[in-house]
Amino acid sequence: MSFPRLGILGGGQLGKMLCQAGADWHLPIHVLDLNHSFPAANYATKFTSGDFRNKQDVLEFGRRMDVVTIEIEHIDTAALHQLVEEGIKVYPQPHIIDLIKDKGLQKQFYAENDIPTSDFRLYNDASEVSSAVAAGQLALPFVQKARTGGYDGQGVAVIRNSEDLETKLLDVPCLVETMVDIDKELAIIVARSPSGEMRVFPTVEMEFHPTANLVEFLVCPAAVDSDTDARAAALARQVTEQMGIVGLLAVELFLTPEGEILVNEVAPRPHNSGHHTIEACVTSQYEQHLRAVLDLPLGATDLLRPGAMINLLGAEDHSGPAVYEGWEKLLSLPEVYPHLYGKADTRPFRKMGHVTALGDTVEMARQRAAAAKEAVRIISR
Amino acid sequence: MSFPRLGILGGGQLGKMLCQAGADWHLPIHVLDLNHSFPAANYATKFTSGDFRNKQDVLEFGRRMDVVTIEIEHIDTAALHQLVEEGIKVYPQPHIIDLIKDKGLQKQFYAENDIPTSDFRLYNDASEVSSAVAAGQLALPFVQKARTGGYDGQGVAVIRNSEDLETKLLDVPCLVETMVDIDKELAIIVARSPSGEMRVFPTVEMEFHPTANLVEFLVCPAAVDSDTDARAAALARQVTEQMGIVGLLAVELFLTPEGEILVNEVAPRPHNSGHHTIEACVTSQYEQHLRAVLDLPLGATDLLRPGAMINLLGAEDHSGPAVYEGWEKLLSLPEVYPHLYGKADTRPFRKMGHVTALGDTVEMARQRAAAAKEAVRIISR
Repeated sequence: MSFPRLGILGGGQLGKMLCQAGADWHLPIHVLDLNHSFPAANYATKFTSGDFRNKQDVLEFGRRMDVVTIEIEHIDTAALHQLVEEGIKVYPQPHIIDLIKDKGLQKQFYAENDIPTSDFRLYNDASEVSSAVAAGQLALPFVQKARTGGYDGQGVAVIRNSEDLETKLLDVPCLVETMVDIDKELAIIVARSPSGEMRVFPTVEMEFHPTANLVEFLVCPAAVDSDTDARAAALARQVTEQMGIVGLLAVELFLTPEGEILVNEVAPRPHNSGHHTIEACVTSQYEQHLRAVLDLPLGATDLLRPGAMINLLGAEDHSGPAVYEGWEKLLSLPEVYPHLYGKADTRPFRKMGHVTALGDTVEMARQRAAAAKEAVRIISR
Repeated sequence: MSFPRLGILGGGQLGKMLCQAGADWHLPIHVLDLNHSFPAANYATKFTSGDFRNKQDVLEFGRRMDVVTIEIEHIDTAALHQLVEEGIKVYPQPHIIDLIKDKGLQKQFYAENDIPTSDFRLYNDASEVSSAVAAGQLALPFVQKARTGGYDGQGVAVIRNSEDLETKLLDVPCLVETMVDIDKELAIIVARSPSGEMRVFPTVEMEFHPTANLVEFLVCPAAVDSDTDARAAALARQVTEQMGIVGLLAVELFLTPEGEILVNEVAPRPHNSGHHTIEACVTSQYEQHLRAVLDLPLGATDLLRPGAMINLLGAEDHSGPAVYEGWEKLLSLPEVYPHLYGKADTRPFRKMGHVTALGDTVEMARQRAAAAKEAVRIISR
């Protein structure tokens, strides 16, 4: 075979790691994003400056490709639909991106397809939400999510009391979800190819900091019994099959204290919860995404070694050109794999990189990841 | 830290894989080679067109760097010596490249340092060799090697009889070695940092085709007893320490039927016998080379999983733009990791890529590598 021209919309860290996965095969990969400072620019075969939110930019870029994929949902999908009409392969399919990027439509899809998820209602703005509370139709506490545009925790408000109602409500078309008791948060990435072949990655557990309400480690395998694990994997597989997506689907799940598993939300692309697959699994999520969208046989997803992943965030009170303190100390740790995204500027809590640590056990991997986090600090010059 | 500017002389597959290793850290890597068709061009932060055999090109390139390294020995080392005088760090050190790229000096180094190696003599040309045979000073059979410029088996003549003497002798300054009985050919890669820290990779065995006189598989671990393995590793370590190299030293060894271990030859850079370290070891030889020349802590070299490596060679009778037949079949094999170098044109037996296969045992890895070799064929369009 000669490889097709593959275009990726978005040149962030996920796009960069897709380019890295393609490098082993010397795969021609074209990337579209605003400018050359983006992480993927250096590692794409060809980088094109343009805006994936702009219809004309996406059309011009996509028309030069055989296959177009994404590393972010916030694309001008009208352009993607048109590319499909013009005969370009677009994976994931544009109607699935439309479905997923609107959290309201996503929830309706779960309801219509008997996929367990928390109860929800849709509203057009903050005043509709307030009225529903006043009328006794909506009880506190609840979670409000903007239907579109949210990312990395942005676009989400947790409304616990009347003060929150007055100060935190988002005044946008939104989804309101019942707060559910959560025992664990899990994530499972599934790959599906055009032929319908599917492969499921091992279950990941998001471990939260004991006091701060923040994900601290993502570990694999998750500390759940084999029955729970099997049910979680079956549910992730079910969602993927019912959506009929081609590419990766990252499925975030809630495990309740009663052992019920609910779908929280999904992403139609490589995901933060799959970074560890680069070192820990037979096939990485990035290579798997390439295999799926290029209609090649999917790879094995077996876990070779327990892993723990931490995000490297910009230090608080530091904005500007990034400097990595403690790099040598970090590299002296065993089985610790740092990934830097090459973002020129750091900002407080900006995702500047990640570290995957492996070990004989999850506990060993977690300790190594913790030591890595302790070692390195990303500040500005 | 902010990363130094690293320059690599040579943009072949070894240079490409060094760039790939640096991608995880978003390391700025500059590569010098003739033109953009070279494997590393796509994956360097910046690629400069120029000739590493040309003094001026090397000087101009090196002066823009903080650290300069190589992926091939055939460099204009006069330029490297000058760069060192000008304060640029050059690793491996130019005098070591001089020593290694002349196989005569290399052998003399072994003799002077009590490093076991096969008996040898140096000659200036073919007629000197013939005269030595005629005078009874040199017995058949023997191996003649050009002192400089050999690569991938070129520049080597095996002289078994008087016919070979007349037709095969190389008319260049040369090294003549006694033929030794060989039970196994082994290879060990050692990394050494400026501080003298060393790490030794697990021993690799070159397995030859039962009838053709060609390396068929490189497997790791080697099938040798633990005493032999320890002696081989100690010898590789000794050579590295005595040379005082900074970077990688790939040490090729002969194991005789009597259990003696001899140094065959060394290379001051990543090596074909270390490709499998990308998937099979905690740290790859490529990342290890970067760590060494950048004076960062060396990584662990433990073998995580047995591996077997095959080179993907261009099919006989095919020259021209390369096409990869059987790619899908190859990708359907478990734990099989193909690497293509992106060389535009294939030629008979040209190294176009390699495949590493892993498995629970060397035997399983070897079978998978054999299936990969069977699956794929590199032909011209």
